[in-house]
Amino acid sequence: MEKIFSYQQLYQFTHAIFTGIGCNNNDATTAAEALLAADLRGIDSHGIARLTGYVRLWEAKRINPLPQIKIVHETPSTATVDGDAGLGLVVAPFAMQVAIEKAKVAGTGWVSVRNSNHFGIAGYHAMMALPHDMIGIAMTNASALVAPTFSIERMLGTNPIAVAIPADKQPPFVADFATTTAANGKLELLQRKDAPAPLGWVQDKQGNPSTNANELKHGGTLLPLGSDREHGSHKGYALGSIVDIFSAVLSGGSYGPWVPPFPAYVPMPANMPGTGLGHFFGAMRIDAFRPASEFKEHMDNWISRFRNATPATGHDKVLIPGDPERETEAIRIAEGIPVVDSVVDELNVLGEKFGVML
Amino acid sequence: MEKIFSYQQLYQFTHAIFTGIGCNNNDATTAAEALLAADLRGIDSHGIARLTGYVRLWEAKRINPLPQIKIVHETPSTATVDGDAGLGLVVAPFAMQVAIEKAKVAGTGWVSVRNSNHFGIAGYHAMMALPHDMIGIAMTNASALVAPTFSIERMLGTNPIAVAIPADKQPPFVADFATTTAANGKLELLQRKDAPAPLGWVQDKQGNPSTNANELKHGGTLLPLGSDREHGSHKGYALGSIVDIFSAVLSGGSYGPWVPPFPAYVPMPANMPGTGLGHFFGAMRIDAFRPASEFKEHMDNWISRFRNATPATGHDKVLIPGDPERETEAIRIAEGIPVVDSVVDELNVLGEKFGVML
Repeated sequence: MEKIFSYQQLYQFTHAIFTGIGCNNNDATTAAEALLAADLRGIDSHGIARLTGYVRLWEAKRINPLPQIKIVHETPSTATVDGDAGLGLVVAPFAMQVAIEKAKVAGTGWVSVRNSNHFGIAGYHAMMALPHDMIGIAMTNASALVAPTFSIERMLGTNPIAVAIPADKQPPFVADFATTTAANGKLELLQRKDAPAPLGWVQDKQGNPSTNANELKHGGTLLPLGSDREHGSHKGYALGSIVDIFSAVLSGGSYGPWVPPFPAYVPMPANMPGTGLGHFFGAMRIDAFRPASEFKEHMDNWISRFRNATPATGHDKVLIPGDPERETEAIRIAEGIPVVDSVVDELNVLGEKFGVML
Repeated sequence: MEKIFSYQQLYQFTHAIFTGIGCNNNDATTAAEALLAADLRGIDSHGIARLTGYVRLWEAKRINPLPQIKIVHETPSTATVDGDAGLGLVVAPFAMQVAIEKAKVAGTGWVSVRNSNHFGIAGYHAMMALPHDMIGIAMTNASALVAPTFSIERMLGTNPIAVAIPADKQPPFVADFATTTAANGKLELLQRKDAPAPLGWVQDKQGNPSTNANELKHGGTLLPLGSDREHGSHKGYALGSIVDIFSAVLSGGSYGPWVPPFPAYVPMPANMPGTGLGHFFGAMRIDAFRPASEFKEHMDNWISRFRNATPATGHDKVLIPGDPERETEAIRIAEGIPVVDSVVDELNVLGEKFGVML
């Protein structure tokens, strides 16, 4: 069961909690907007459902509520940012803004970030580029749940990639996806319903195919996009690896099996080779390649041609990346955001602790 | 059946053919090296087996053997290149070199290319960045064989992505993959053996799952990486789309279903929205983010940690992207390159036409 809340209700609560852990007003605003973008866009696993988790990381002193976020190295088109253990929800918009400013001058901007934490949904940060007539790119590593092809060991996170591309009359193209067959949030939905997972999402701890949605609790692993070697899992493994390397080996963050875990009760890995999570951001000015108006007309043409591609039997239309999330956002702004009861209960406990009412 | 040739034999023959169609000596050298990199690395579908196809495109006046390749627009970190309908095998190294030169000054370089043709394997161009202590990125669109999720229409090519990342004592990380479940070359191998394809590689013209390796000859389509919606094909579709947009909508090339076909007997699409194929290249100077020696030490650590990840039962080791191709290259340099008889026959016909002996 679930309750419906207006965006404003969730926003005020979230802002108050971030203020409660010691964020200043600006950072609490930035963090609440970034976090709730997930709930608006229907990616419920990454929104307010994680608020308690962020607070636990603060309690464990793994999140610094008043970070001094700094550019530690730069060139005309690049920067390396140290997030000072801040909320990824605050560090990421800072770094993406640096990429945008670089792009204004150099044509493109590329920022690798270390010493950060979970940043919510990648798509939100990539979309910051759109009002500037820029293409936005965002990615992050995450704690290890995924086994490389031919392995049973947790070596990579679900390491998402987002790419946002502006159009003219058409809405923008916004791809935002985990580099695994299915994101962990999808497994959590199945666990709640006690339903099996499709073959190809997880393997058991010996590496056998499994349909148990709870397999990760028994030492199993998520599978890279492609599921198995025959269906291209080496490509998903390569994509997840590229995200890991761009986000953390470039910046000096921690990578692979050494990425700090999101659950605060899980001990930090021993011998970490870098500090905190890593992210990677890019901004490319459209008119660094061709006039923006020309590009956006062609994007309109691209989008409408693909939207009108012949559908397969049983399907009425072909979707453009970003369509489902945009449709959900329109509905949720109008009708409110559903939050499942177990999350509402957790938020109420959190609210009591900080003297805030949901 | 197959014959074994030394690299030098294939090189001299290929160089002579490219000279035969009117390339100057420099371009013929560049093109032969780029093309045969595929044969050396074991990607036989993209190497000398395609030489006859390139010549047919020249005969159809779709390839200009003496192109004036030009930068038509640029900023400190970007350029748009017009390939003047040249061989992609010549245009791509030119454009990648522009990206490298930009990166030397601005930290990174990004080049979108229009009016080009097939460029061989993406990995070859990405690897040009490695000796400069840069990360190299290469991608290209290609003629449409792939249906988006929920569709049965050919809208995208196999649109490969390559990313090459330098290490220190370890060999470099080199990922190079089609954004489909399986590249078309893999289907051709099965066709030759009259073997079925795994489910999830192709669908028939109604959109039903199929194991017929010849399905494309009957109006079927290749499937994006992920195979079906449940296994993440919308992610493969998004990746292929991003390659298409970066390569051709940014540059002014032709995109989606309008990409010029490789087989010269297939008529050009009507109402093309741009000129020729498109590519996209990137070069990122490592020390634009952190000292190159530090990064490369951590890449060594990343690579050896992943190579030593616990293997699944039945597998003896975990591979790093680029391992299989590098191993094949070492063997083929030492022992020669096998070419199947049907390709040898084609090459002999080609050789007769140009007065060159294989």
